[in-house]
Amino acid sequence: MDWAPTEMAKLGWGLVGGGEGSFFGPVHRMAAALDGRFELAAGAFSSDPANNRRSGHALGLAAGRIYDSFAEMARAEAARLDLVTIATPNHLHFAAAKAFLEAGIAVLCEKPMTLDLAEAEALRDLVARSGRPFVLAHTYTGYPMVRRARDLAASGALGTIHVVQVEYAQDWLAGAAFSKQAAWRIDPARSGAGGGLGDIGTHAFNLAVYVTGLTPRALCADIDHFGEGRVLDDNAHCLLRFDGGAKGMLWCSQVAIGRKNALTLRVYGSEGGLEWSQEDPERLTLSQLGGPTTILQKTDGRLPVGHPEGFIEALGQLYRDLAQVLTGGSPAAPLPGAEDGVAGLRFVEAAVRSAGGWVDL
Amino acid sequence: MDWAPTEMAKLGWGLVGGGEGSFFGPVHRMAAALDGRFELAAGAFSSDPANNRRSGHALGLAAGRIYDSFAEMARAEAARLDLVTIATPNHLHFAAAKAFLEAGIAVLCEKPMTLDLAEAEALRDLVARSGRPFVLAHTYTGYPMVRRARDLAASGALGTIHVVQVEYAQDWLAGAAFSKQAAWRIDPARSGAGGGLGDIGTHAFNLAVYVTGLTPRALCADIDHFGEGRVLDDNAHCLLRFDGGAKGMLWCSQVAIGRKNALTLRVYGSEGGLEWSQEDPERLTLSQLGGPTTILQKTDGRLPVGHPEGFIEALGQLYRDLAQVLTGGSPAAPLPGAEDGVAGLRFVEAAVRSAGGWVDL
Amino acid sequence: MDWAPTEMAKLGWGLVGGGEGSFFGPVHRMAAALDGRFELAAGAFSSDPANNRRSGHALGLAAGRIYDSFAEMARAEAARLDLVTIATPNHLHFAAAKAFLEAGIAVLCEKPMTLDLAEAEALRDLVARSGRPFVLAHTYTGYPMVRRARDLAASGALGTIHVVQVEYAQDWLAGAAFSKQAAWRIDPARSGAGGGLGDIGTHAFNLAVYVTGLTPRALCADIDHFGEGRVLDDNAHCLLRFDGGAKGMLWCSQVAIGRKNALTLRVYGSEGGLEWSQEDPERLTLSQLGGPTTILQKTDGRLPVGHPEGFIEALGQLYRDLAQVLTGGSPAAPLPGAEDGVAGLRFVEAAVRSAGGWVDL
Amino acid sequence: MDWAPTEMAKLGWGLVGGGEGSFFGPVHRMAAALDGRFELAAGAFSSDPANNRRSGHALGLAAGRIYDSFAEMARAEAARLDLVTIATPNHLHFAAAKAFLEAGIAVLCEKPMTLDLAEAEALRDLVARSGRPFVLAHTYTGYPMVRRARDLAASGALGTIHVVQVEYAQDWLAGAAFSKQAAWRIDPARSGAGGGLGDIGTHAFNLAVYVTGLTPRALCADIDHFGEGRVLDDNAHCLLRFDGGAKGMLWCSQVAIGRKNALTLRVYGSEGGLEWSQEDPERLTLSQLGGPTTILQKTDGRLPVGHPEGFIEALGQLYRDLAQVLTGGSPAAPLPGAEDGVAGLRFVEAAVRSAGGWVDL
Repeated sequence: MDWAPTEMAKLGWGLVGGGEGSFFGPVHRMAAALDGRFELAAGAFSSDPANNRRSGHALGLAAGRIYDSFAEMARAEAARLDLVTIATPNHLHFAAAKAFLEAGIAVLCEKPMTLDLAEAEALRDLVARSGRPFVLAHTYTGYPMVRRARDLAASGALGTIHVVQVEYAQDWLAGAAFSKQAAWRIDPARSGAGGGLGDIGTHAFNLAVYVTGLTPRALCADIDHFGEGRVLDDNAHCLLRFDGGAKGMLWCSQVAIGRKNALTLRVYGSEGGLEWSQEDPERLTLSQLGGPTTILQKTDGRLPVGHPEGFIEALGQLYRDLAQVLTGGSPAAPLPGAEDGVAGLRFVEAAVRSAGGWVDL
Repeated sequence: MDWAPTEMAKLGWGLVGGGEGSFFGPVHRMAAALDGRFELAAGAFSSDPANNRRSGHALGLAAGRIYDSFAEMARAEAARLDLVTIATPNHLHFAAAKAFLEAGIAVLCEKPMTLDLAEAEALRDLVARSGRPFVLAHTYTGYPMVRRARDLAASGALGTIHVVQVEYAQDWLAGAAFSKQAAWRIDPARSGAGGGLGDIGTHAFNLAVYVTGLTPRALCADIDHFGEGRVLDDNAHCLLRFDGGAKGMLWCSQVAIGRKNALTLRVYGSEGGLEWSQEDPERLTLSQLGGPTTILQKTDGRLPVGHPEGFIEALGQLYRDLAQVLTGGSPAAPLPGAEDGVAGLRFVEAAVRSAGGWVDL
Repeated sequence: MDWAPTEMAKLGWGLVGGGEGSFFGPVHRMAAALDGRFELAAGAFSSDPANNRRSGHALGLAAGRIYDSFAEMARAEAARLDLVTIATPNHLHFAAAKAFLEAGIAVLCEKPMTLDLAEAEALRDLVARSGRPFVLAHTYTGYPMVRRARDLAASGALGTIHVVQVEYAQDWLAGAAFSKQAAWRIDPARSGAGGGLGDIGTHAFNLAVYVTGLTPRALCADIDHFGEGRVLDDNAHCLLRFDGGAKGMLWCSQVAIGRKNALTLRVYGSEGGLEWSQEDPERLTLSQLGGPTTILQKTDGRLPVGHPEGFIEALGQLYRDLAQVLTGGSPAAPLPGAEDGVAGLRFVEAAVRSAGGWVDL
Repeated sequence: MDWAPTEMAKLGWGLVGGGEGSFFGPVHRMAAALDGRFELAAGAFSSDPANNRRSGHALGLAAGRIYDSFAEMARAEAARLDLVTIATPNHLHFAAAKAFLEAGIAVLCEKPMTLDLAEAEALRDLVARSGRPFVLAHTYTGYPMVRRARDLAASGALGTIHVVQVEYAQDWLAGAAFSKQAAWRIDPARSGAGGGLGDIGTHAFNLAVYVTGLTPRALCADIDHFGEGRVLDDNAHCLLRFDGGAKGMLWCSQVAIGRKNALTLRVYGSEGGLEWSQEDPERLTLSQLGGPTTILQKTDGRLPVGHPEGFIEALGQLYRDLAQVLTGGSPAAPLPGAEDGVAGLRFVEAAVRSAGGWVDL
């Protein structure tokens, strides 16, 4: 727990996407608000002009800083914003990120980073040239116990890592009825080649890599769509091979009835094993060779142990770290960036291309 | 989940207590920030003038709205603030609440409401005369599944309630070393007659009453201090009797090694039973006579099911409800108020007085 | 895990009660059979002669060793049996135990030991005079992790014990319909002064004492019967005081809807805390002051860790220990005996007499 | 719970393998003893003559029925035994089973059924010709909640099954030190082509098929040995394809530090999902599309709900079912047999042969 805020003026923050009816718009606003470091100053919230206006007004913005397009926003806000969050459907990520980076504004971008791998590689290069901070919204890397897991793995507590089991199971696309939030996620033109692979598989993949520090080398995937009238995957099974010989499995599903947002990572090495589950994020199980199993709990969260923190606080940690970076400091832990975004798209496209065979990553 | 914010201007908010080094200051700031309805406009953060200034500056307040005392703040801000949160040690609650209510400002007050019962009753009357909203910070009543539990009990899903088991166990006062945050909590002059009874026992007592709707009639308590050099209780065992014949137990402890913030409520009636635990707040277990046990999960939180919300969001719900009230609306569920504060102090004093005998509530 | 059996001839074993339709008859038979040390050689299974005959035949006994009464059985089998298990309703325990002890036969007796305290004290004296082994069927003391908990407490891992929370909650007497197995348990003439107190409260009480080694000094109880048409308690709440200053709570209920056989013990001392639950008997949670929480698992069960053992194996452990005793060896851990039976009846009668006041134990 | 035993004479039972120092010998003896239907009458317990003699004497057998070899035992006991259990290392299963079947004796055989697929097919044909009952010791199929899961799947409660996730993780082969029980399991000459694949992978594979009723069509496996000085797999990852389009994953590991005997099955269909875990065998989680998640508990075990049954009782159920079959009755649920044994070996060999490619099953 830290008492926290600094004397600095608030950082200017813009939001692209996230208008009325979106899931992640409010989440980003709550997360950004937690530490009081950012002030929403501008936005282009929806491709629907009426929604966009209503959303901006509701958020207290003056009409002049509510933009009909991110392109217009990037031009007008070039000198003014410190950070823009991109929370649109996937097909707009690239162009929006490009616009803001070129306007000299740091970007926090939803995942998957872009519609396809080619865009991802181009964006990575753009980020490098821009010199601006770019963070990919792999929210789960903001959980205290995920960072603790990463530290444990890096410290050698697990020995040489042999086995990585990661899965992300949901059920919100089971059955036939879909919300507006589902519509673009099952449309290849807006989602990209991956359905669940892009939406949640990239989280699972990133989490495994973030915690273990391993380099994935190849995958073999079997992907399916079990829901009716769907063309993108809603279930994917992957075997993974890592440099150095570790092996793994990744399962992502949006039709696993009873599973809500069950992102779970288990890592086993020569000296120990650890397990973490997003729906119980404050605990981390650590087992040691020949020793007992210990339940680790947070020692350095926003709140004391036993006072649950959740998803908003995890995303809020990425905003806190970004505020540090934007004011000349360092993040408390490494942040997922453009290279991770490339890796994510490479994962998605490899899984789609695999058709049950091995594909290099 | 709701998209939420309104077009209204932000509400002016003040904070008393909660300066550098406090636990609850940052929590209130994060909770109040979540929905963007409140803007911190003034404060008196610490009885230590230097801490007070530093805290105010760090929070971005102009020097003119950082006050050396809550009395001065109440006078100066009488026409300006919509809400003041009182997060001082207990002995200051009464005077501070009085000052702001008399200045026409709504109050969110930490618990226990006052130092003793006499003060509590006086404050209750003051609240009634003031006509201003007054909410007691029983944060746990803001959890979606606590409200769901209350609705279930009220709907008759449990039948006639027979048994109420509530407990709140921590271990942060086990052993000899104490933080600054512990110092005033174990000092009768600042904490009141109850140690753990006031600090966490009142939460447990309130939770039981809030969910069940029962009226407690009497208690029989055995209270102890097991930690060294302590005069106030750090462990209390109570038998409870409710109007209508239900019986209960309440245990609160701050020396239960291994328990972090384990507030748990279990209620059993003629038709069903339910169980909820604060450290796993997103689930509620409901069992029905002759039927199965089901795990209920939130359907109406800020986030979709499976995306954990925690303590900050629970307190944020009280702020959201207060914003509704302050702008002419209604809270989403009943809020704990001055009458509950009186009940809490009555509970504390009865437990202290009991010495193992029955005392009316 | 141990490979186990010895070369000795099987021990002769008799069963009183436990005929067709009983719950505990089959359990005792399965438990006694596990290690192959006992052979059922005689029985008086039911007060209903037809049931008795059918039961005996079904169990493969010759007609001559199926007895219409335990008195007759004790006379006839005096020279022949090594052990008799008494699994009748409570009101017959005393006379049956007396008969077999006087016939020189060791006894394993269901709990509560007798119908009332006077009988219990008389039986304790009889046991002492007889010199025969007498074990009370507190099955839970046979679980490996209960014995481990006892060892931990005795070794000082918890420091000075301050708080003991024990509960035993079931729901099989909720609602109006009862099985035959319930009939005698709610009848004072056959059950004694306690309903749930005798049936499960004595287990909880014994478990707390067995693990902690503490001596209970007094209790204060509030007992109720919430089920319709009942005269004996089906819910009891007790405060406990132990020699040396430890405090505790005991809750036993047979109307806690959703709880099946939830015997749970939690013990907290100056140096650590431990928790064990009968429905998850293979794990024991140990927390240490300033240290982590570890999950202990069996190292010395019949099976390797991860292969669940349960209730039958726990009772089987008592039979295994008895076999050791009957063949000149020692039990692997202390066994509950007549003194514990006296303590149990003292507990029941004190709780019934308490009426909310303190009663010495 | 059922009261149970019949009037019949005990069935004559023999044991091959399971001498001093074995893990499964005592387990079979305890399981067979539970219902009192079998009496150990003969055995060939060890290839070490001294061990064999000691074991037989310790179990109370007359010298004449302790055999130096199973071949001799099969000849001598041809007319006398009802059932023989084969609990030797894998390489002896075929010859032993053949000998007893040809002697007209029913067989309960440990898994994997034989050393290789060719033997398995030959044994399947032998079983068919013999007309004798043959059961494979897939102990987990004896758990009440596994049978309940099978019934639920068969009843359509899950709709069309889409996804099957099964895993069996242990850690007893992590690190360098091995017990005698490990020695033969890591020796290809005695274990066969699969290490963990045969020892626990076949259990996982069988469980998935037993519960879902699906027919596996192909697998793609990545197998490894991470332990030092090992030639057989101690970790295997498999993708599975079933007739009808369902997909699955199977993971078996003996080096997953912290996992003891974690056999877990999760099945998701168009209408529901279910989850079961061997280390918590008394509960089954059932979720329905658009409905809540329910915790199912046993209604028809040996003991009432809340009284844990475990591994011995599960194996005891196979013995109980066999007793029914041997006395002209029917098992309470389908029993795993020779065809399942063939499927198991086909699975092992396919996984070994796969080398990361797809292999038909």
